[in-house]
Amino acid sequence: MKQNWDYVTPGIPDDLFTRGEVPMTKEEVRVVTLAKARLAPGQVVWDIGSGTGSLAIEAARLIPGGQVYAIEQNQAGVELIRENVRRFSLTNVRVVPGRAPEVLRDLPAPQRVFIGGSGGRLAEILDLVNEILPAGGRLVINAVTLETLTRVLSLLQPPWSREIIQLAVTRGVRRGNYHLLQAANPVWIITAGRGGAEDEG
Amino acid sequence: MKQNWDYVTPGIPDDLFTRGEVPMTKEEVRVVTLAKARLAPGQVVWDIGSGTGSLAIEAARLIPGGQVYAIEQNQAGVELIRENVRRFSLTNVRVVPGRAPEVLRDLPAPQRVFIGGSGGRLAEILDLVNEILPAGGRLVINAVTLETLTRVLSLLQPPWSREIIQLAVTRGVRRGNYHLLQAANPVWIITAGRGGAEDEG
Amino acid sequence: MKQNWDYVTPGIPDDLFTRGEVPMTKEEVRVVTLAKARLAPGQVVWDIGSGTGSLAIEAARLIPGGQVYAIEQNQAGVELIRENVRRFSLTNVRVVPGRAPEVLRDLPAPQRVFIGGSGGRLAEILDLVNEILPAGGRLVINAVTLETLTRVLSLLQPPWSREIIQLAVTRGVRRGNYHLLQAANPVWIITAGRGGAEDEG
Amino acid sequence: MKQNWDYVTPGIPDDLFTRGEVPMTKEEVRVVTLAKARLAPGQVVWDIGSGTGSLAIEAARLIPGGQVYAIEQNQAGVELIRENVRRFSLTNVRVVPGRAPEVLRDLPAPQRVFIGGSGGRLAEILDLVNEILPAGGRLVINAVTLETLTRVLSLLQPPWSREIIQLAVTRGVRRGNYHLLQAANPVWIITAGRGGAEDEG
Repeated sequence: MKQNWDYVTPGIPDDLFTRGEVPMTKEEVRVVTLAKARLAPGQVVWDIGSGTGSLAIEAARLIPGGQVYAIEQNQAGVELIRENVRRFSLTNVRVVPGRAPEVLRDLPAPQRVFIGGSGGRLAEILDLVNEILPAGGRLVINAVTLETLTRVLSLLQPPWSREIIQLAVTRGVRRGNYHLLQAANPVWIITAGRGGAEDEG
Repeated sequence: MKQNWDYVTPGIPDDLFTRGEVPMTKEEVRVVTLAKARLAPGQVVWDIGSGTGSLAIEAARLIPGGQVYAIEQNQAGVELIRENVRRFSLTNVRVVPGRAPEVLRDLPAPQRVFIGGSGGRLAEILDLVNEILPAGGRLVINAVTLETLTRVLSLLQPPWSREIIQLAVTRGVRRGNYHLLQAANPVWIITAGRGGAEDEG
Repeated sequence: MKQNWDYVTPGIPDDLFTRGEVPMTKEEVRVVTLAKARLAPGQVVWDIGSGTGSLAIEAARLIPGGQVYAIEQNQAGVELIRENVRRFSLTNVRVVPGRAPEVLRDLPAPQRVFIGGSGGRLAEILDLVNEILPAGGRLVINAVTLETLTRVLSLLQPPWSREIIQLAVTRGVRRGNYHLLQAANPVWIITAGRGGAEDEG
Repeated sequence: MKQNWDYVTPGIPDDLFTRGEVPMTKEEVRVVTLAKARLAPGQVVWDIGSGTGSLAIEAARLIPGGQVYAIEQNQAGVELIRENVRRFSLTNVRVVPGRAPEVLRDLPAPQRVFIGGSGGRLAEILDLVNEILPAGGRLVINAVTLETLTRVLSLLQPPWSREIIQLAVTRGVRRGNYHLLQAANPVWIITAGRGGAEDEG
């Protein structure tokens, strides 16, 4: 089922993606995560732990001439990403099934890296990214557990500079004549670069 | 002082704008607000209560061939917007000093409207926007007070459909060896359209 | 099944109450709501829209010689409240089945009033409370919908003075080796008194 | 200046305490923290890093026959605690100037421990508390930085069981005819006990 999104802004509503049982980065988190990455045409982008591919798809749409690699070890996720790539008629997303960091070694060096999941291999993935990301490169990590948050903070030390935010969205959800205040789980967005102005608070 | 922002994504850091004493929409709120608007090239966009112009500037950058009208009644704000337009070398932002809704009557009809401030004239502004916004048009309002939130909700009734979210950002701000958790004031983002799929919760 | 709570502090864990399908005020919200009420021995307390009775039970435990009236129109709720009163071996909670404000007219005048639900009759309930609450009396309302929040704010005008807070709790919930950050829906707690120091911000 | 608080509930408004430049645990955080401790008459309570003493004072009021030790290494804080003890006419708070864990060694064993600050000695303090807290004892820690939160989580391993929450309060603060939504910085409240039912999520 083809889906158009004729806008220059990201923020494709969650329900326009094929989802299944795989957790998906929600719309507002996706939008802020993409903004923190500072995308530009022609970039090579890695989306490690791509899940349903929502972030990879939104990034690919934004960077004509760029290329997004959607890395995912879960087979159900891989199929959802492929479905979503077809759904949005994208030609610049390559799905990379398998485990990071192993499958990363064959990929072109990226200017931008997203990490949505690390399969418990966060230290090894960050080591590889640390070697391969050029000066001016940016890394944006989404964490939904305390352990991931703390692990990221301990691993991303100087010369990485970092910005750390928690994004919490509450929706007014219609129930009859009322709008119930419904909180989405908060997401920590950690942005890191080299030699940058992050981490000044 | 010229400032470049060579990215396709919005999210210009707050401190790259000239600010003064006028309140400014913060980076993450700005990014989500722009996404909710669903911008496209060639659009006419009104930014009513433009403040320092941060939203208008980010919108203008995203819509080649489009035109942004930054409406602001506060003279200090008007000068900050002009300064920011120069700073980012934009040619598609027109600053409109004066009070809404009066100054809106001479402007070309918009496809997108942002409301960041209404000078107590919200009902009149929404009446005018209601007449002039075409089918498929979108309105995105930012509210930082309870009164504005409640007023918006009571004024935006069917056939407007609405989405209502509260965005709360907490930053880890560096204080010596620690990152203090610092909460930014939450902002309510109300998105409205006609005949749309909003308000389904 | 008897349950002891041998502490002077409230904050009985949610799962020690009998719950059923009726929504229940969660532990932390309950604790703050009770604190905002400023309870004292010998007080008469109304809990309007008592739900499962969790707030009424906690209040009753705190006020020796006081009396709590748990008003609830939902029959399932009434039975849950009675079950919880038995469970905590309380002798100073009287369950009042029926609709407010009608059933309130026969009750002794309260020094403290909680409103957890109003069955759409909030204006009439507040009129009655306004007449009957003495100087120094306090009213604490919990709102989980935007409509209730806005209605409360519009109805509680001078000479009521008000304090308005939103309480948002996020839990680290264990999932295997991780703690997922899980947000509970936020609750607005509006505290009102007469001639008090509320509403100074 | 004497201050009365004639209620059985905690939640003394912040501005009734003498404060100075020392950070103070805010009202709602204090109330939830006390509730998590599950206080009872006759208990011995340690408040390590007592700051202005607000938590110690509220605890002491709640436990007739109990004794609170307010430990604080900052001399300005020590004087504020003493002033607040006088202000609320308490006889069961003993101020303990000095550094933890050293000054703890001479104190009677506690049933309840609060940690509001650790002067960088958190591991040593937790070691001592771990030895001395009896079965059924409870420890409640407030963390306002990411480093403290992560350090607490790594140090409190089995046989400690833990509950981890983030409490975020937003106030509607009056500005003329409006109530501005003002977010207080969030506080993490970690409750730990031995052999308890914490950490079930």
